[in-house]
Amino acid sequence: MPKIKIDAHKLLEKIRVQKPVIHHLTNWVTIYDCANVVKVLGASPVMAHAQEEVAQMAKIASALVLNIGTLTVGFVEAMKTAAKSANEKGIPVVLDACGVGATQLRDKKCFELLDETKIDIIKGNSSEIARVAGEKVRTKGVDATRVEKNLIEIARNLSKRRKCTVVITGKEDIVADTGEIYIINNGHPMMANIVGTGCMATSVIGTFAAVEPDLALAAACGLVCFEIAAECAAKSASGPGTFKEKMFDYLFHLDKNTINRMQKVERV
Amino acid sequence: MPKIKIDAHKLLEKIRVQKPVIHHLTNWVTIYDCANVVKVLGASPVMAHAQEEVAQMAKIASALVLNIGTLTVGFVEAMKTAAKSANEKGIPVVLDACGVGATQLRDKKCFELLDETKIDIIKGNSSEIARVAGEKVRTKGVDATRVEKNLIEIARNLSKRRKCTVVITGKEDIVADTGEIYIINNGHPMMANIVGTGCMATSVIGTFAAVEPDLALAAACGLVCFEIAAECAAKSASGPGTFKEKMFDYLFHLDKNTINRMQKVERV
Amino acid sequence: MPKIKIDAHKLLEKIRVQKPVIHHLTNWVTIYDCANVVKVLGASPVMAHAQEEVAQMAKIASALVLNIGTLTVGFVEAMKTAAKSANEKGIPVVLDACGVGATQLRDKKCFELLDETKIDIIKGNSSEIARVAGEKVRTKGVDATRVEKNLIEIARNLSKRRKCTVVITGKEDIVADTGEIYIINNGHPMMANIVGTGCMATSVIGTFAAVEPDLALAAACGLVCFEIAAECAAKSASGPGTFKEKMFDYLFHLDKNTINRMQKVERV
Repeated sequence: MPKIKIDAHKLLEKIRVQKPVIHHLTNWVTIYDCANVVKVLGASPVMAHAQEEVAQMAKIASALVLNIGTLTVGFVEAMKTAAKSANEKGIPVVLDACGVGATQLRDKKCFELLDETKIDIIKGNSSEIARVAGEKVRTKGVDATRVEKNLIEIARNLSKRRKCTVVITGKEDIVADTGEIYIINNGHPMMANIVGTGCMATSVIGTFAAVEPDLALAAACGLVCFEIAAECAAKSASGPGTFKEKMFDYLFHLDKNTINRMQKVERV
Repeated sequence: MPKIKIDAHKLLEKIRVQKPVIHHLTNWVTIYDCANVVKVLGASPVMAHAQEEVAQMAKIASALVLNIGTLTVGFVEAMKTAAKSANEKGIPVVLDACGVGATQLRDKKCFELLDETKIDIIKGNSSEIARVAGEKVRTKGVDATRVEKNLIEIARNLSKRRKCTVVITGKEDIVADTGEIYIINNGHPMMANIVGTGCMATSVIGTFAAVEPDLALAAACGLVCFEIAAECAAKSASGPGTFKEKMFDYLFHLDKNTINRMQKVERV
Repeated sequence: MPKIKIDAHKLLEKIRVQKPVIHHLTNWVTIYDCANVVKVLGASPVMAHAQEEVAQMAKIASALVLNIGTLTVGFVEAMKTAAKSANEKGIPVVLDACGVGATQLRDKKCFELLDETKIDIIKGNSSEIARVAGEKVRTKGVDATRVEKNLIEIARNLSKRRKCTVVITGKEDIVADTGEIYIINNGHPMMANIVGTGCMATSVIGTFAAVEPDLALAAACGLVCFEIAAECAAKSASGPGTFKEKMFDYLFHLDKNTINRMQKVERV
């Protein structure tokens, strides 16, 4: 696959200048980190979840991020209200299918969100996206190449069927829509040793989607920035605790040279 | 305006000795940091929010902190119950008008709290306090001096009308009641690069209010201590992630000499 | 009391290899830290709390951790559903009696959990466990030895009556069941200067209980590992903020030599 350069810094600069409001209905475990990663990027997080105000809040936002990690029935109803308002305004809606497949409730509510509202970007790890796609993926005991090709196919098909951008995170991240498919090879194994990197990645994608209408490019640029910061942090951290704080430090200071030098992106 | 010295260290020592219980009904994004900043000051945070126990919990506390950042209708009802119990006991009630003005729900619920319970200290940024005061404030494109004078007037009037202490945080913080008006010039721009400094400031004010009946003095002393810790942290941090952790470190170790040497307080 | 060595490293290795799923219904203040400490140990936290999915989620877990720190009536109902499911599957259920004694609601709900479900490990500080045991304990103004003996008796009796393992945390931790009684002398005063060490300790105990059927041994090994990491962190931290991050770092890297060299365990 050909290596390419994407101008992630241009979008990061747009975020820093425009300071878009990113509305979240996210999970209670990582809610602080989701808000903080948006703030550190230079944007403005809002985490309102009351049924009575989410439609109005979505109207003042530039992107909406949903995450079903700690869903309840009522919380998903508020997500739907927010998403419909976001759809009306025409801002991108990102859904983290966190934990889908683990319980019937998660499956049911995830599909309700996909069927009753327009989700612009759906994001998960390989097993979550496979579940959403209605396919089985063997994530253990299969060699990396075969999994990767399989996953690209799953992402592409889901993207076509649901008419949305699909992001599969993992050792390699896949960003697929009906046009381009990007593979991002940035990131560091330390990211898997703390809670919240997946949720934060979704918030980052939502923030980049707020300033760039090409959603696959936005998602790819967001992942590149976030994961480069993680790589830098992992090199200087003494473990997962200090890693997270340094990741915020590096993301805050991330500059053009670092992004262009460290990015590892391929196009399928 | 004349520069003055306030004895913030005396109150900090009282907190460390008395270890007052500070009851919060706060926002889910920053709830850990609100609890932790209280703990690091030497006091004892309690974050109970169940309608069935908040009245009893407020009765064992020395101050009550409310924050509508992630309000719901039910949560505000619990806030009212807690506030009425705190009013009965005679402990100070602090309200962070977080995000007021953003939605009709926030406006409605914020005014219900102010009308149905006795709020002793109301705190927000300039646009939030202007909203509570029913005034319009131009926070962009106006030169600093004019805004400042305008804000002092807004704070003073709101204080008179609502019979409470008013705190406006920003580059300069204003603390106003019917007696003194303090301007605090401590703090650091890095505080605006993380989520939660505003909420933590409210918890700090509540903690100082638990040991000092002059609530304007308590709020001013709390802000001085918190913001001096932030200044120290900003000098040694490599970015917003490490900044927050170091802010807790400096606040924990804050001593009399540092407070007296670094404080920048004026009286109007 | 005779000093003994327990093979905490063996269990830690089991956790790192087996990566058990630890289901939590915990408190909203410390939920991130509870999840993260489990992750840093090498296990897999799940924090689902919806009434409709907790039974199913508990069925895919290897231990269930409950914490009533920010309880509501509805949340405790979900805890009961999860606990009954965990009981059916035969996985250990750990209850942190966080804040019991502070309000009638807490007392009522804590006893409902104990009476209506099988709690395998109950954990609290001395006043919380005394409350659960229906006894009064003087925790201030009494010399350490007398308190300690008193507490051991309380733990032993509660363990017999409730047929569960009892953990009392404090300067010395007591782990009691009908067989062994362990006293753990690890830990550091800095742990009391941040919010969440108690809650995290419960999550650690739940994680160790997932891989070891001798629950008293599991609890003792978990506390030893957690508190040794805290001791290491306290030595190199500049205050409570950096302490917590370093605690995660040390826990992640904890090795056999450090555990065996630093552990301070006695058997009664």
